[in-house]
Amino acid sequence: MPANVSRCRVCKEPAVIDLPRHNAHFCGEHLVQLCNRQMAKAIEDWEMFTPQDRLLVAVSGGKDSLAVWDMLVAAGYQADGLYLGLGIGEYSDDSGGYVRRFADERGLKLITVDLRADYGYDVPTAAVATKRVPCSACGLSKRHLFDRAAVDGGYDAVVTGHNLDDEAAVLFGNTLRWEIDYLGRQLPVLPAANGFPRKCKPLVRLTERETAAYCLIRGIDYVVEECPMAAGNRHLAYKEALNSIEQQSPGAKAAFYLNFLTKMSPLLAGSTAAARGDVGTCGRCGAPTTGDVCAFCRLIEKSSTHEAVPVEFVLDKRIRR
Amino acid sequence: MPANVSRCRVCKEPAVIDLPRHNAHFCGEHLVQLCNRQMAKAIEDWEMFTPQDRLLVAVSGGKDSLAVWDMLVAAGYQADGLYLGLGIGEYSDDSGGYVRRFADERGLKLITVDLRADYGYDVPTAAVATKRVPCSACGLSKRHLFDRAAVDGGYDAVVTGHNLDDEAAVLFGNTLRWEIDYLGRQLPVLPAANGFPRKCKPLVRLTERETAAYCLIRGIDYVVEECPMAAGNRHLAYKEALNSIEQQSPGAKAAFYLNFLTKMSPLLAGSTAAARGDVGTCGRCGAPTTGDVCAFCRLIEKSSTHEAVPVEFVLDKRIRR
Repeated sequence: MPANVSRCRVCKEPAVIDLPRHNAHFCGEHLVQLCNRQMAKAIEDWEMFTPQDRLLVAVSGGKDSLAVWDMLVAAGYQADGLYLGLGIGEYSDDSGGYVRRFADERGLKLITVDLRADYGYDVPTAAVATKRVPCSACGLSKRHLFDRAAVDGGYDAVVTGHNLDDEAAVLFGNTLRWEIDYLGRQLPVLPAANGFPRKCKPLVRLTERETAAYCLIRGIDYVVEECPMAAGNRHLAYKEALNSIEQQSPGAKAAFYLNFLTKMSPLLAGSTAAARGDVGTCGRCGAPTTGDVCAFCRLIEKSSTHEAVPVEFVLDKRIRR
Repeated sequence: MPANVSRCRVCKEPAVIDLPRHNAHFCGEHLVQLCNRQMAKAIEDWEMFTPQDRLLVAVSGGKDSLAVWDMLVAAGYQADGLYLGLGIGEYSDDSGGYVRRFADERGLKLITVDLRADYGYDVPTAAVATKRVPCSACGLSKRHLFDRAAVDGGYDAVVTGHNLDDEAAVLFGNTLRWEIDYLGRQLPVLPAANGFPRKCKPLVRLTERETAAYCLIRGIDYVVEECPMAAGNRHLAYKEALNSIEQQSPGAKAAFYLNFLTKMSPLLAGSTAAARGDVGTCGRCGAPTTGDVCAFCRLIEKSSTHEAVPVEFVLDKRIRR
C-alpha cells in the first residue's frame, strides 16, 4: 500500500471517501457510522419521532429512500415501506423491482399503490391531460397518496428520503422567487395538522454523495438513473448552481440550508395558509384542502378520462421544462 | 443590409443590443431611453430624491458610477462627484484619470479624497495590517468616507452606481448565509438616520451589460479592468452562479432581487441593529457607530502605522479570497 493513501479520520485505516465539508476522509465502517449519527442528530434536533412511533417510509427505489429505510430499521425504528407505481415506463418497472427486492430480502412490510391500477391514470398521461410539467402531477400524486396511506394505516409519521442536496435546491428555488408560503413550510419535520399526517426528513443532514456511498457500503442495490421525466427541470439547474458554490466553499450548501432553519424559519412562522387555518375538507375524498375539491381529485378527473399516453410521447414533445 | 438583421423594438431601426429578459432588441437611442426610464422608475418607486436635493455621486471610474452620474445630470439632478483614491497601484491611477476626464469634459464638480495622502494608508497596506481580504478594508473605507463627505458637504444623499447584478450577487451571498441583519438593510434606498446620510442606488433595475452598453453609446470612457484585489472573491462566484440561472430562465435575476424587496424585506423590517436603535457616536471621529470607537478609526490605527505595502505583495501572497 502506498504511504500517501488517504486514511479514515476515525480509525486511520485506508479511506473510501473524502468529505471536503467535514475536511476528512472515512473508511466504509465509519462513513456508515457518520450517516447514522447525522440521521440520529436530525431526528433528535427536530424531535421527529421515537421508537414507539409507527413510521411509513415513502420508497422510490432510489438511493435516498432505501438508505433511510435501512438506517431506520437498523436503528430499531418500526418502519414499513410505501411504494407508489407512477407508470413512468421502464423507469417505474425497474424502480419497483429494486424496492420489492429490498423489502423481500429483509422481510420488511411493503405497501404498494399503483396510479394506473388504483386511480386510472399515470404520470405521463397526467402531464398531457393537465398541460403541466410531469413533475407537477407526480409531486401532487405523491403528497396526496403518501398522506392518505399514512392516515388510513394509522401511522404516526410519513418519512421521506430527502437529502441535503434536495432540500438546499428546493430552498434555492423558493428563495430565487421568494415564495414566502413555500419557504414557511420548508422544515425537516411538519407536525400533523388539519388532517395531514406528520412528515419527517431524517436525511437532511446528509448529501446525496453520502447516501450513495452508504448504499454502496451496505450493499443496497438501487435505481441509479434519474427519472426521465425530470431531465432538464429547474431543480437540477439549482443543484448545479449550488454545487459550483460548494466547490469553492465546502460547507456552503449545509450552511445555506441549516442557517435557513435556525435564522430565517422562525421569522416566517405563521405566514403559511395552513398556519392561518385556511384548511377545509375536500368534498369528494375528504382530504384536507384549502379549496372545495382537493387538487388530487381535480387531477384524477382530468387524467383518468384521458387516453393513456406513453412516456416517449412526453419526452418527444418536450413538454417538460 | 441583410433582411434578417435584428431590429429595435421601439423604432424598428437596426438594433445594437438584445436583452433576453425584456425579450427584445434595442437601437442605441432606445437603449439609452430604456436606461433612463429604468432609473426614473427606481427613483420614483423608492422615493429616492427630488431635483431639489443635492446629490453626491460616489464615482470609481467604472461604467456604473460614471453612467449614473451622467444619467442624473442629463435628467436635471444636482449631482457632484466624489472620488476616493484607494492606492491600488496602476488600477487606482487609471481609475482616477477616467473620473477626472469625465468631470472636466462636462464641467462637473468633483471632490477627491486620497486614503494615503489624507489618512496615511492605502487598501493593500490595510489588507496586510488587518490580516483581512482587501475588499473588507476597501468597503469599510468607502462607506465611512462617502458618509462623512456627504454630511460635511451638506448633501441630501449619497448615490452609488450599484447595478442589478451587484445587488443580486450581494443578496445571494447574504442569503446563502442567511445574514438577517445584512438582509434587513439591503434596500435601494436607506433613509438618513442616526447620523448616517441617505443612500440611494438608482441603477438597481439595470444589469451591468446594460450600463456598459449605455456608456458605449454615450461615448463615456471608463476603466474596463476589474479591480486586481477583487480577483477570485466570492462576489464574482455568486455572479457566475446567478448568471447560469439567468441564462436558463431570463428574468430570474431581476425577479430574485425585486421580489426580495416586495415580499421579504417587509418581513425583516425592524430586525437590524440600526432599527433597534443600538447606534451611538465614535469617541474619536464622531461618526455613528454601534461600538465605542468606529471601525474606520480602528482601521486607521492599525493601517497608518504599518509599513506601506505594494499591490504586488498582496497579489503574490494571495491573501485575498
